[in-house]
Amino acid sequence: MASTALLTDMYEFTMLSAMVEDGTVHHQAVFEAFARRLPEGRRFGLVAGLGRLVPLLEDFRFGEEEIGFLLSASAITEATADYLRQWRFTGSITALPEGSLYWPGTPLLTVRGNVGECMLLETLILSVLNHDSAIASAAARMVIAANGRPLIEMGSRRVHEEAAVAAARAAWIAGFASTSNLAAGHLHGVPVAGTAAHAATLARPTEREAFAAQIASYGTATTLLVDTYDIPTGIRTAIEVAGPELAAIRIDSGDLLVMAGEARALLDELGATGTKITVTSDLDEYVIEHLAGAPIDGYGVGTRVATGSDHPTAGMVYKLVAVNDGIGEDGAPTPLRPVAKASADKASVGGSKTVSRFPDGREVWTLDGSVPPGAVPVHIDVARDGAFLPVASAAEAREEAARSLESLPAQARRISSGTAFRISEKHEGDAR
Amino acid sequence: MASTALLTDMYEFTMLSAMVEDGTVHHQAVFEAFARRLPEGRRFGLVAGLGRLVPLLEDFRFGEEEIGFLLSASAITEATADYLRQWRFTGSITALPEGSLYWPGTPLLTVRGNVGECMLLETLILSVLNHDSAIASAAARMVIAANGRPLIEMGSRRVHEEAAVAAARAAWIAGFASTSNLAAGHLHGVPVAGTAAHAATLARPTEREAFAAQIASYGTATTLLVDTYDIPTGIRTAIEVAGPELAAIRIDSGDLLVMAGEARALLDELGATGTKITVTSDLDEYVIEHLAGAPIDGYGVGTRVATGSDHPTAGMVYKLVAVNDGIGEDGAPTPLRPVAKASADKASVGGSKTVSRFPDGREVWTLDGSVPPGAVPVHIDVARDGAFLPVASAAEAREEAARSLESLPAQARRISSGTAFRISEKHEGDAR
Repeated sequence: MASTALLTDMYEFTMLSAMVEDGTVHHQAVFEAFARRLPEGRRFGLVAGLGRLVPLLEDFRFGEEEIGFLLSASAITEATADYLRQWRFTGSITALPEGSLYWPGTPLLTVRGNVGECMLLETLILSVLNHDSAIASAAARMVIAANGRPLIEMGSRRVHEEAAVAAARAAWIAGFASTSNLAAGHLHGVPVAGTAAHAATLARPTEREAFAAQIASYGTATTLLVDTYDIPTGIRTAIEVAGPELAAIRIDSGDLLVMAGEARALLDELGATGTKITVTSDLDEYVIEHLAGAPIDGYGVGTRVATGSDHPTAGMVYKLVAVNDGIGEDGAPTPLRPVAKASADKASVGGSKTVSRFPDGREVWTLDGSVPPGAVPVHIDVARDGAFLPVASAAEAREEAARSLESLPAQARRISSGTAFRISEKHEGDAR
Repeated sequence: MASTALLTDMYEFTMLSAMVEDGTVHHQAVFEAFARRLPEGRRFGLVAGLGRLVPLLEDFRFGEEEIGFLLSASAITEATADYLRQWRFTGSITALPEGSLYWPGTPLLTVRGNVGECMLLETLILSVLNHDSAIASAAARMVIAANGRPLIEMGSRRVHEEAAVAAARAAWIAGFASTSNLAAGHLHGVPVAGTAAHAATLARPTEREAFAAQIASYGTATTLLVDTYDIPTGIRTAIEVAGPELAAIRIDSGDLLVMAGEARALLDELGATGTKITVTSDLDEYVIEHLAGAPIDGYGVGTRVATGSDHPTAGMVYKLVAVNDGIGEDGAPTPLRPVAKASADKASVGGSKTVSRFPDGREVWTLDGSVPPGAVPVHIDVARDGAFLPVASAAEAREEAARSLESLPAQARRISSGTAFRISEKHEGDAR
């Protein structure tokens, strides 16, 4: 794998250089990733990305190509080049499991190590968690709105070609049934789905010939797209060609609420009572909820899931919360001290936090490492002393997400605009 | 380079398989990429991505790994596996140069070849153009609002780690001065910038020690971040440590309009009349315009540029517009016939279009290949008979974008919500 070390903001390296010069680079530190708030109107967040992040962190390393570029860009000094030649991550990482719920302020991922190594990972950690969690959080709302009807993720063409693969994975973790993205199937084991677009119909002289070709290749266990010209005509032609055993039709335009009802009536009239109706076309959680009463068997969601349904980023930040002052006069490491900036609107809570949850979902942070009676700590080990541990598969994360969504009270499962349903409790522990 | 062939929606392959079965796959076709409309409120679009797209298309190929996955996913039949083993792109591609303006319906990229090869490229073409053009179009509005003040792109941490690199490139093409993203510097030659974050200050016992360390490494030609604790105190400390020759300060929180004025007055009072003020923190084209009268020397823009300022995708589609019916009874290829779907709200204009523009920017499409007197055709050759041609560098695309934005009338350069300032004229040519 190529090095991921340059997927990083330049200032991490200019800061590193100043720290190499004055020795701060070796001080012990704790950084935490968290979201100051949920996107406007959202009632919960669903964290995703950890399974993608770990291999990217394992490939974070410096060869002469990376170091040569950093020197040429004046991002580092010569002394820092020497430091990076020896660099490898030696710290420890804990995190919420992929597929967990999160709230404003919940520490999602904690990195402990020396200041230099922790700081360099900021951009990569945030890029992965911010993107994947934004998609998973939006997808989870669509899964709730669909109320058991299967969802296909099909937004690849609307977003960056690699982000599309990650989006398909995140949507699947949140509960989508499948994706159109083949690379997501190949790399992450996401079930893939897809049958035909309008081009298949337009490429033939008639719709009938297009349907016949598709049935010839796939039999009746396929989905015919019936809206290229006129939907009732398309449905009649589909059933004439495929017979009433046709698995499904797809409608990709028009007023889907009306169209689905008319299509169901026509299919039933034609004896195709088992033929399912899939709809696509600018769906999101709001439209899906609106279609709840229509005779629809499945949804294909594109743009709106792959772009996070108005919130393409989860807004997470990665902050230094504790640091020591190096080796003391007695030759021993000085204690960690909590730190926090006081900037207007961006004040943060200092100190390294232990996150626990009670069975009812209430969340508690402690600063002294304690776990309140009846609660359990929720971070898992991701890396210990520089060694990365096996990470849950996307399929396992999907099971975790299903349990998470199941645990939400009815109020938090509402699609309408709201606030985070349960604010974290912070217990002031002893940070000294 | 790894194959890009699986960065594709599955249905392209299921359609392909049916076309291999009935022979349609060899019919001649023309596909066009275009945007049905601009994002709500936008007055122009700026196309980007072509320079990234070409190498990805060159790596679109099928080895046994890709074919094995497609077979295992039931995306293709055995006959199609054989077809793909021989597959290589043999068609021709033309496109608007990167950095061009576009309007609703403007054909942005045209692919001519056989149906099979043209169809397979749909997802990859749209992913790249939709993402990069969304960023470039948003960034161009920020460039206009900044009115000559330099902009730094610094949104990497908010978006997918690879999308971040493409976003930095697209923002630079649109006129941003630099990016924080090192990979964009390394891969695309985008100038990189960045100095320090709050962590650098928090990691030291005092702000003064942090500033001293930064000055020790970089001299006074650096930017000190002064808002970790209290801005006036931070500014006084910065000038005490660096002297009045300090290049710049950065403010990342608070009411930037007020803060910038107060910071300027304080710097001047301290004799630091040449010290520049850079502001960051949730900027976008609207905030930048609001800050036009403040004594600000540069802007850092993060989330809002990297996510397209409310429009993370350009909404482009890729449609079959003409196709023939294979070899006729006389042994010669049958003529291309224009095709278009009639679906509600998604009707498109059939026929292969030649796009020309008049010196005043008016755009004309013809269906017979003609160019009206006084106009010039605007597509460039991207691939001829399967051979890809050299593509403009990001730096050249940036010059093209500067000319494009310069050519816009004042009305189209307004940031407020509006409509596409100039609707394309369609000349009905002879499509037969």
